[in-house]
Parts: sequence; C-alpha cells; structure tokens
Amino acid sequence: MIKRNFVMQKLISIFKSFGFDQIETPVIEYASTILGKYGEEGDKLTYAFTDHGNRQIALPYDLTVPFARYFAKNWQELPIPFKRFQVNRVWRADKPQKGRLREFYQCDVDIIGTDSILADAEIAAVMYKVINALGFKKFIIRANNRKVINAILDKCGYTEDQFIPVIRVVDKLDKIGKAEVKKEILEVDSDEKKVDKLIEYIDMKGSNEEKVNKLGLKEAEEVREFLEYCKDYNIPEENLMFDLKIARGLDYYTGMVFELTVEEPKGGSLCGGGRYANLCGFFCDKEFSGTGVSFGFERIMVVMDELGMLSGQTTNTDVLVTVFDRKTLGKSIEVFNKLQDGGINAELYIEEDKLGKQFKFANKKGIDYVVVIGPEEIEKDVVVLKDMKSGDQKEMKVEAVVEELG
Amino acid sequence: MIKRNFVMQKLISIFKSFGFDQIETPVIEYASTILGKYGEEGDKLTYAFTDHGNRQIALPYDLTVPFARYFAKNWQELPIPFKRFQVNRVWRADKPQKGRLREFYQCDVDIIGTDSILADAEIAAVMYKVINALGFKKFIIRANNRKVINAILDKCGYTEDQFIPVIRVVDKLDKIGKAEVKKEILEVDSDEKKVDKLIEYIDMKGSNEEKVNKLGLKEAEEVREFLEYCKDYNIPEENLMFDLKIARGLDYYTGMVFELTVEEPKGGSLCGGGRYANLCGFFCDKEFSGTGVSFGFERIMVVMDELGMLSGQTTNTDVLVTVFDRKTLGKSIEVFNKLQDGGINAELYIEEDKLGKQFKFANKKGIDYVVVIGPEEIEKDVVVLKDMKSGDQKEMKVEAVVEELG
Repeated sequence: MIKRNFVMQKLISIFKSFGFDQIETPVIEYASTILGKYGEEGDKLTYAFTDHGNRQIALPYDLTVPFARYFAKNWQELPIPFKRFQVNRVWRADKPQKGRLREFYQCDVDIIGTDSILADAEIAAVMYKVINALGFKKFIIRANNRKVINAILDKCGYTEDQFIPVIRVVDKLDKIGKAEVKKEILEVDSDEKKVDKLIEYIDMKGSNEEKVNKLGLKEAEEVREFLEYCKDYNIPEENLMFDLKIARGLDYYTGMVFELTVEEPKGGSLCGGGRYANLCGFFCDKEFSGTGVSFGFERIMVVMDELGMLSGQTTNTDVLVTVFDRKTLGKSIEVFNKLQDGGINAELYIEEDKLGKQFKFANKKGIDYVVVIGPEEIEKDVVVLKDMKSGDQKEMKVEAVVEELG
Repeated sequence: MIKRNFVMQKLISIFKSFGFDQIETPVIEYASTILGKYGEEGDKLTYAFTDHGNRQIALPYDLTVPFARYFAKNWQELPIPFKRFQVNRVWRADKPQKGRLREFYQCDVDIIGTDSILADAEIAAVMYKVINALGFKKFIIRANNRKVINAILDKCGYTEDQFIPVIRVVDKLDKIGKAEVKKEILEVDSDEKKVDKLIEYIDMKGSNEEKVNKLGLKEAEEVREFLEYCKDYNIPEENLMFDLKIARGLDYYTGMVFELTVEEPKGGSLCGGGRYANLCGFFCDKEFSGTGVSFGFERIMVVMDELGMLSGQTTNTDVLVTVFDRKTLGKSIEVFNKLQDGGINAELYIEEDKLGKQFKFANKKGIDYVVVIGPEEIEKDVVVLKDMKSGDQKEMKVEAVVEELG
C-alpha cells in the first residue's frame, strides 16, 4: 500500500504540474449508464446487480464511460479545453479466482474540446515525465497517426474495407515477425506487391524527421508538428519514436496514437492512448474531440516490482521517537511535537518497553531513524539520532534533527 | 472535487505526520464478510448482490469490519502497536433518492494492539490537529470514560441492567434538556434520589482537573493520565473538556471515548471515537484492543461549506502560460517547462486564441495568475506576470516568477 501510494502520488503530482484537475465519478452507477458501451463481451464482464430498492446497478468497467457521462452532463460549466485526470478503481468479472475479485486501478488523463496537435504533444509529455519520474530509463514513446496509417494503406492499394483486418495483423509485427505478418495479410488480400510495399513502409528506418520526409504524405504533417512540440517539451529523441506499426484501438482513435514501452529490460506497454473524434456520443448530441492517455497502474506496479524499483520504503514514518521511561515521556512528546511541527513524519513509541524492543519495532516497520531521549540527553538538552541502517548515532539538538531529516 | 481533495490531503498529511500508514481494503467483499456484523438494520442497508460467477458479493457498510478482517488476517506480519488510517468510500442503501446513490467517504484512524492511555491521547491529538488545520477555531473535544460512567451509575445505585437504558437517556441531555432527561430516567428507575445524584454528577462544573478530583473515583485516574498526555501534546485546555455526558457506541467502547463538536457557530459533531477491547472478534480468536477515531468526511465538507471555509480554490493550477502566436509558442513552452521544473503547477494554453479569450479561460477555471510572453518580452528576456484578482501586472524574469509563486 505504501508502494502503491508512492507511485500514485508521483503520477498525481505530475498530472497537477501540467494543470490537470482531478475528478471522481461514482463507484455505483445505474446499469443503463455502463451496459451496452463495450460490446457483448464487456457487458458480460461488468459487475451488474439489482439492489434493495430494485434499481439496476453496475460497477464501472473503465473510466472512459463514466467520464463521458460526467462531461456530457457538465460541459457547459467547465473550462474548455477541459483537462482532467482520474484515478479510480474499476471492476471486471473475469476469470474468477478463489478469494480474489477483479478490482483494479486505472489512471486516465485527457484534454477534451480541442483539435490542437499541441494537446497530443502535451499528453506525450505527461507520459514521458511520469515514466521518467518513476525511475525508468530505457523506454520509448511510440507514436503514430491513424490518418497516416490509412493513407499508407490507400497508397499500397488496399480498399477501405481491408484497412481494419490489415491493421490488426500489422499490430502483431513485434510478436509474430515479418514472415508471419506477410502470410496473414496475404489471406486478406493475395496481392504480394501490396504487402511488400506495405512492409517497406512500416519497416522504414531513419530518424523521426527522416521518416516524415520519406513518407512525403500531407497526412504526416500532423506528425511533424507533433514531433516539433515534443522537442519543445524536452522529450529526448531517444525516448520518442515515430513508429508506423502502432495502431491501438481500431475503431476509437482518429489521429495521433501513442504507446509507451519499456525497452530494457523488456517490460511491455505501461501506458497508451491517442486522439478521438467524439467522446460523449452515447450521452449527448454535441461532438467533443480530445486526446488522452491511460496508465496501466497495476502493470506499472508489477513491472517496477520485478525490476526492484520499489524496494525500500514500507512506511511513511521518517523517525521513531522512543520513550525512555514514564518520567521522561513528557520530554519525548515535546521532541515529537517539534519534529512534527518541522514537517517531519514522526512517530512516538506508544508502549512502555525497553529500548531494544523499540528499535526492533522501528526495524519491523521499516523506519530509518530513531531518536533516543534519556535523562542524560535531557540534562544536556540534546537527543541521540540513530541511523537504523548504518547503526551510526550522534548527539544533536532537536532543531538539527529537523534540519537533517527535513 | 478540488475542495474535497484539499480537505482530504490535509487529513492525510496529518495522519502521516503522526506515523500512521495508509491501508486500503477491497470495495467488493464477499457478502459473508460484511453481513451479520451490523444487526438486522445494517444488513438491510448493505449493498449485497450475486455476481456472474454466482458469488455473493457486498459493498462495505463501514471501514471497521473490512479493517478488522484485514488485521485478523495480517497481524502476524504487522508492527504492533499497528497505526493505520484509511480513507475510503462506503455504501448505504438507505432513503433512495432519484439520481443519487448512497456512496460516501469515511476516514478512520486507529492504534491497535495497545492498552496504553498514551494511545488515546494521541488519537485526541490527531483530532485536534486535523480540525485546527482545517481552520476551525471554536471547537471542543469532549472526552469521557466508559469505566467512569459505569462507576458513577453504580454509585448512584443503578443496577447493571439499568446502565444501558440510563446512558441512552443521558446522551440526549444537550438535545432535550435536564427536566426531560430526569423524566425519562424516572421511567427506568422511579427513585428520585438516584436520578438527582446522577444529574449532579453529569452536570459537574469546574476545570477538567477539578472534575477528576471531585469525582474521587479510581476509574477517573485513566482520565487524569489522558489529560496529562493531552497537555504534553499541546492540546489547549479550551479545546478539551472532560464531559461526563458523552457516552458513544453503547456496546462497543470500553474506556476513553471522544467526540469533537464545533461550538461557534454550532456545527455538531465532526468526529468521534474511543477505546475498544476487541477489534477482530468476528474474524479471529485473539483479542486486540485499540483506540481510534472516525472522521465524518461528508459532514466536515458540509459544515466547512456552510461556514464559507472552502471558498476560493477551484483548480490545482497555479499559473496559466498564455500563447501569443504560433511563432512564439516554442518560447511559451520553454517558460512552461521552467515553471513546472520549479515545482509550480503550470498550465499551457492549448488553443490558438486571442489573449482576451485566454484570460477568460483563466478566470473560468479559477487560475490566479497568468503569464504573457509576446515578441517584446522575448526581446527583453522577461515575461509579464498578471495577477487575475487585482489586475496588477509586472515584467519579470521567469526565475522570479518561480520564486514568487513557489
């Protein structure tokens, strides 16, 4: 929980640093709000039930639908473009495991009510800043554009009804390899010239700018603009790739799309998103375009844990204030008050125990520092600060402890 | 939502400053965990349903039962005394209103696995610090002790089976007045001498210490110790009252009990709690005593809103960075980066609009400051910082803006 909070707080503080405000949508929604938005499969995975008031109720399957409903209802009062983030639990009733229910967190960040490519670049900047702040080094934001994909398919000679099945195969390139991709695309359209041309496109080498130039498509100008803004946002070139293989959300996305993958060690996709033309189609007549990213919070936790990026902190407490005996307790509380007032998360030991037991408690809780105040220290108006990791200890004024741990 | 977060963050940072760590319990529990713990009425108000896997599911009715289950399962790995806080939604299926489901937040803070009165005083200190930090001035923590209450009733001549019905009447003293209390107690026991003696006790005047002394009960020594520690924790005397009228949770609490009320203007009870002898009786054989407080988060929000204590902030954004035109956009992003790196929640205006429209956006979102960067400012290597409330504006270096808003 401490680790989860640490990661979550990082995410939230970066969202805020870009001017996103948090909203929260209900955990219990009327079933009519949720059902019918994710296809048959989604309905099947939705927790839906009838409550005592005989109302049909459901738990959110994702954050997009509850947000779309919220925005459709409130957009007239909201500043537009509207920048919001949301960190909430969602539920899926799949693969029931013993003792475990499918409840997990999603973090969504969106800018609604703008067609500006600047907004897409800002979403990429959010992705970069968050993943960088979490301590990842080798990762790549893979960006592409749905209009570019369609233009390429068109240039290769595919008909519009073939776009979706072909994209579906291309999306698997990294997994199944070029030969298998070629074979599967030939099943959609047996013209070998088309598929060779297509693979040449999606396998294109060069810097991002070189690729845009080589393409020579007017649809790629959006990508050029996007890359330019990303540079302004200080996203390093090694962390950003114009990758023609990336498609994401076949029906949903309409412009720029992004996916962030950890490259070393290979950790898969941590977040992804893109631009959509109409957020609230289910809930209002007005069309609102926007762009956004969804962070796979549970995935991030798993990857960070595997990579040992979360070791260490198991408590919020910075320092344990020990209690020597009943007579000196008042002084211990006084020291605790001073540390707390100095902005330090201090903790007073509650029981009357030997110091050794109090040190053990600090170790069990994972507290790094301990303060000792006995009669001798009170006499000298100092405390002893003990570093639990190194074992080092030194006498100092309480104010110096505030300074050191603050 | 911004206001809710503001209040919640205050609570959380104070909980942490005392060394409490956050835990989270599932939103969906097996119905068997929740049902049967709150009596018939509680079961009726619990959201319970059957999911697709034909499992009996329920949503938490409060945070105590899920926490008790958590602690019963994990206590062997936890540092004891265990200090935890929890901020989560709970659900009650009462009074169904159109378009509104009964979903609200609770904040619980507990110290488990200790009989120390110091723990009770620390809980009182948490109450004081939180309510003080929220900006309340005239409030009183009313503290009492269940052992003292029982001793008084015994001294007045009531039999044990009369304790609960009598306490239930005493608890209403502030609402119904002395005469009515007397009348109702006479219905339990018609001996007028007993009731007069009782009312003399609960109506006792004097300072906290004087009351303890006047009582002359050995059971009151716990209160004396509690008051002494509260003084060490710097809880001012005017905010703490030994109030013999307070009972709370008739069956649950066993020692110190507390309730915090706003006195001016009268705002009712914002939080309350006390000591209990056995947290996990439903879930394990081992007995764990503890003490804690539950903050009525929704109640606090309502009272603060009524008292105008929440006016103001509607966004996290500290400053809007405007965009003069496409040519200067790169410079605007550069300024945004510097502000953000300086720890400021900045926001870049996304659309290409006239400055006037950008100012309106800032006002609508409630952003207090706006930064303007046009060709002239770029020439001079400054920005214009505009205070949206006063209308004042001044040219300065970006670094000076970081200084001023940081």
